[in-house]
Order: sequence, then C-alpha cells, then structure tokens
Amino acid sequence: MSDHFTFRVLATDGLARRGEITMPRGTIRTPAFMPVGTAGTVKAMYMDQVRALGTDIILGNTYHLMLRPGAERVASLGGLHEFARWPYPILTDSGGFQVMSLAALRKIREDGVTFRSHVDGKVHHMSPERSIEIQGLLDADIQMQLDECIALPAPEREIERAMELSLRWAERCKTAFGDQPGKAMFGIVQGGDKVHLRLRSAEALAAMELKGYAVGGLAVGEPQAVMLEILEATCPALPADKPRYLMGVGTPDDILKSVARGIDMFDCVMPTRAGRHGLAFTRRGKINLKNARHADDPRPLDEESDCPAARDYSRAYLHHLVKSGEALGGMLLTWNNLAYYQSLMADIRAAIEQGRFKERVAEIQEEWARGDLPALG
Amino acid sequence: MSDHFTFRVLATDGLARRGEITMPRGTIRTPAFMPVGTAGTVKAMYMDQVRALGTDIILGNTYHLMLRPGAERVASLGGLHEFARWPYPILTDSGGFQVMSLAALRKIREDGVTFRSHVDGKVHHMSPERSIEIQGLLDADIQMQLDECIALPAPEREIERAMELSLRWAERCKTAFGDQPGKAMFGIVQGGDKVHLRLRSAEALAAMELKGYAVGGLAVGEPQAVMLEILEATCPALPADKPRYLMGVGTPDDILKSVARGIDMFDCVMPTRAGRHGLAFTRRGKINLKNARHADDPRPLDEESDCPAARDYSRAYLHHLVKSGEALGGMLLTWNNLAYYQSLMADIRAAIEQGRFKERVAEIQEEWARGDLPALG
Repeated sequence: MSDHFTFRVLATDGLARRGEITMPRGTIRTPAFMPVGTAGTVKAMYMDQVRALGTDIILGNTYHLMLRPGAERVASLGGLHEFARWPYPILTDSGGFQVMSLAALRKIREDGVTFRSHVDGKVHHMSPERSIEIQGLLDADIQMQLDECIALPAPEREIERAMELSLRWAERCKTAFGDQPGKAMFGIVQGGDKVHLRLRSAEALAAMELKGYAVGGLAVGEPQAVMLEILEATCPALPADKPRYLMGVGTPDDILKSVARGIDMFDCVMPTRAGRHGLAFTRRGKINLKNARHADDPRPLDEESDCPAARDYSRAYLHHLVKSGEALGGMLLTWNNLAYYQSLMADIRAAIEQGRFKERVAEIQEEWARGDLPALG
Repeated sequence: MSDHFTFRVLATDGLARRGEITMPRGTIRTPAFMPVGTAGTVKAMYMDQVRALGTDIILGNTYHLMLRPGAERVASLGGLHEFARWPYPILTDSGGFQVMSLAALRKIREDGVTFRSHVDGKVHHMSPERSIEIQGLLDADIQMQLDECIALPAPEREIERAMELSLRWAERCKTAFGDQPGKAMFGIVQGGDKVHLRLRSAEALAAMELKGYAVGGLAVGEPQAVMLEILEATCPALPADKPRYLMGVGTPDDILKSVARGIDMFDCVMPTRAGRHGLAFTRRGKINLKNARHADDPRPLDEESDCPAARDYSRAYLHHLVKSGEALGGMLLTWNNLAYYQSLMADIRAAIEQGRFKERVAEIQEEWARGDLPALG
C-alpha cells in the first residue's frame, strides 16, 4: 500500500501488461476485473465472498447512488466503503453513461446534463464539477470524468461533437478534482468507431497528464472486431506508464483479446447479471442451467474449481433453483460467475509473468471451444 | 446420535420441556425451531449459514418437492439431504396443507386428495400411502401423516368430518410407514377450535403409539387465545414421552406461550418471509426497515447479536437495500431473523434447564414491549 496513487508495470508479454496500482486502501493487481456494485451492493453477494474471490476493487455507479440513497447521505454515513462494508478500493463511474441509458428527459448542454430520475421523477442537473463532487462525497478512490457516451452506429459529426465535449469536460473534471495524492481521476477516450477521432481524443487526454485513462463508448452495439480495432489504435496513443481501463467490457473472450492489446482494467455486469438469469460461466464455456439436460445431472459445474458454488452443488440442484425462481439460484450462479472471472484474471496475470500469455490464451479458448461435458445418459 | 429415533425429556419447568431427539442424522435440541426449506432451499440462505445459527433440523414441503423437481428425481439424486446439501435431520410435511392452500381443483375423498398442480396444471392424486411413499423417496427423517386441515372458523360438523378422516389416514400412514427404526412418522391432532374433538383426536392417535405427535390446524385464522386454549387441552392428552410439534407456528410470542403449554417443536415461514419483506425480528421487537426513520441511522439492528447481519450492517444500509429491492436486503434480513429465532430457542432451552423459564419469558416480553431504540434526533 502507499499514500500515493501509483501504477507500475511489473511485466509485459507482447502488448499485454502485468501491473500493480497501489493506493491507501489497497493494491490492485492488473489486469483486473472490477465486479459491479451498482447501488452499493454486488448483487446477491456478501462482500466477504467478493473479496475472497481475489477481488481488489469494485465499481460503484454514481447515477444510482446519487439518486438513492443520495451522495450527501452516503458521505454523512462515512462514505461508500463504510456504507457498503467494502474497505478496499472503489472506482465510481461519472454517472454519465447511466444518465444516457436510464434517465428520462435528458438534455445535454455545454454545462452538463439535465435529467429526470428513474426512481422518483425528480429533475437533476449534473455538471462535470457536480459529478466529481458526488464521487468525492462517495469517497471513491478512482473517479471518472463526466463524458458523453453515444450508442453506435452514429453519424461521424455526432461522434465528434460528443468526443470534443467530453474533452472539455475532462479539463473541468481535472480542475474540480484538484490535487488528491491518494486518489485518481481518469479521463475517458471517446470517438466511437472512428480511429482518427479516438486518436485525437487520446492525444488530448494524454496531454492533460491524468493518472489513468479509460476507453469508453465501446461494447455499445458494435461488433467485437470494431472494438478490437479501436483498441489497437488507441492503446499505443495512451501513456505507457498509466493504467488503461476498458469500460463496461465484457465477455471472457473480450477480456483476453483486450488484455492482448494493452488493457489493464475491466468492469462488466455480465457475470452478475447472467448469474441472475440462469447462466454460468465456466472453463468449458457458458452453460445455461435452465436447459432440461441438467435436470437429472448430479455433476457440479466444475469439479476442479475452488469456488463452492461451482464445485459442491449439482447441476440438477442449480437447474431446480433456477426453474423455481429461488434466490439461492442467483446467489450461487453469481458466485460461480465472479469466481470464474477472477480466476481467469489470475490466470492471465500468471501467464503474462511467465511470458506465455499467447499460449495460455490459446489453451483457454480451446477449452471453451471443446464445450461443456457431454450430457449424461 | 443413535441408530434409533429416540426422545428424552431432559428437564421440565412447569409444562415447558427441555428435550432431545436423537436419530442417525443428528440430535435435535428441543424446544426446536425448524426453518422452512420449501423447495429444497431455505430461501435466500446458504445451508452452512442455516446450520451455523444452531439449526438442528429443517422442514421440507412435500407438495412443492413432489411437483418440482419431483420425488422420484430427488430419490435418484440421492435424496433430499444430498440434493439440498443438508446432511442433518429433515422433517417433511405430508403435502396436505399446501394442497388445500395452493392447488386448484382439489377434491377430497376417502381414498385421498386429487388436485391440479399450481406449477404446470397436471392432475395428481395423493393418498395417505402415496404421501408416505413420497416422503420416503425424499428420505425425510421425520415424516408426517396425510391429514385434512381446514380453515377456521368452520362448522363443527365439517371440523369433525375432517378430524375423523385424518384419524383413518393416520392409521393408513402408520401401516405404509411400517417399521423404520431410525426414522419417525408423526400423527397430527385435528379438531379445529373444538376442545372435545381435539381430545378425541389426541386420544385416538395416542392409542396408535406413534413416535411423535403434531398439533395441526392452528394458526389458520383463529385468535391466539383460541390456539392457546386448544394447546392447554390437547398437550396433556398426548403421551408425555413423545415429542409434540405445533405446525406452522409462529411469532416469537406464539412460541414462548406454546412452549409454556408443553410444545417441543415449531416451524414457520415467518422469519424467512418477513425477511424478504423488509421486516426484522429482534430482541427489541419487530422492526420495519422500510420506514424512513432508518434512512440515516448508522446503528446496526442489534449491536449485541452474534449474527453479522444484525451486528455489522447499518440500518441505513439495510433500509437502502430494502427500498432498492436489492437481493442482499432479503439475504441479510432472513439471516437476521433466523438468527433471532434460533437465539430465542437457545434462550428458552437454557431457561428451562435453569428452572427459570417463566421469569425469562417475562424478561423477553418486557424487552419486546420497551420497543426499538429511539430514533436518532
């Protein structure tokens, strides 16, 4: 741990990086996956389970938390770490993405975004300064600039406008954040699927000398190939000595391919959301527990896993829980999925250290491709 | 533990009994509360949590399990203990109560009950013999006779008819159950709110020399005073050397007053169901976490509890989880509630051993009456 936010690259293998972020609340081993704790809870999980899986940092959603229970309330209760009983690092997004996807009546102006809460209908205004203020009230260790993220495909003109606005907001967020040695404010590269816009955004942000850089506005409807092309262009344009965070991504395969292109941090609702919908991520690929083939299957999801949810419960039982809508089904599958994601990250980190990242990726992909165990009978 | 199902009364204090049931899968300390594991899961709980609270036995619902995943399937998967990962004693009800309350098109004849599944609409027939067969397939340690339980108030004629039918079914269940030394089949006293019918039922069942006796058909709409009056009449008519189980009861206060009248075992969905609806049972009474008074309250539900859910999470956080519909809210409050119920049972058992049951009941009731902590000002 450290009084200052620092990032070190410990090893590289191709463009893949094995690194370490240190800050007062803990150390983040990268490549890192951040489970999403939308409203101050990683859904259907106890925080001690989340930690025990090897989680160094979780993500909180500014939009959700500002509306309920409210940023000032969280601050008066000792901050988000105390409130949610997670004493380790927390990254908060800026709120911008959810304003665009969840709120009604949103209106974007130079000054910020005005929107109506999806919880109680109240009108809120969020400027870059207010976003940083809220993230400060939450006491987030890594805070994100307010940006405008648009869905793809979109006209180039529109992508460029949002990217330029996001750059101006980055400057304002940097000023609002000021000098906080133990924390960091990350800028967000925008520019949609246009490489030249991405490069312009990355260069302008790099010039601001921020403590970390995110790539935003991907995994918003474009094919994986487009996302990877953008990463190939963008990562080299970002400072090598700063962490790189790919926002909202993704599938296990997205993660492998993005690490291969130089990404250090990820967050995604996929493992938690899929778990609540009866889907399990495993080393043999994705398994749909709703499928009747599991109804009489006494085998666990993965007999070799360290996670009790994967190792100790029969598929027949999981199938039954999912079909019956029992809470325990979502609890166990979320646990399994986060365990799988975190074991994948540990696997990736070890492979980079050993200089066999590419080989390991091929092995992992091969095991996925072989698919699930044959059905019994 | 023992190869045989046995019951011993270890101490008495007034009519309250401190006892012990032993059987191959474990020992049940009585008075005992059995958490309800309707469909093979105590809702929103991991079984190791349920066990750690001091739970010696859980209840499974025959009706739910026979419909989904199916009794034959559970048997082929190694029985309910293996399926649900609970290696300790399990009591199953007969299925009769849920047939009456959940199924459509139910028709009761001498032979049994025909009904339509609420899950898939299929028609099923359950005879006393089939109920015992199903409970055997589930491998339940304590099995219940099929009975007819009717809602109160009801005409005496109707109550008497159902009670007499239940007695004939008890005989058939006894024959179907046969000789299983490590397990038990309990008879169920019926007779509604009519003391003379209850006595006739209790005497007829006592003559059958069963291994245990339940009092059924209470907590079905009648005032508490009626329930207690029935218990006062019924318990003395039951053999003193057999356990007495009050089905589907109840509030913490119901439990205290029923133990005082000679009851040894309880089951109820109240702690688990209330937990999913934002209600917490505590030594200071019932607390509604939906109430806005908790929104800014950093205090836990009960700083003196051994249960992390009661001791470590702020009321503000619990309020937030409940208001936001987060799964963790139901998980924590269910955990708190079962912890409270089991600590109450341990408290009762200790008080009977010490010969101060009445005094302890008065203290507990006084603490409930003082109510919750004053709101923060």
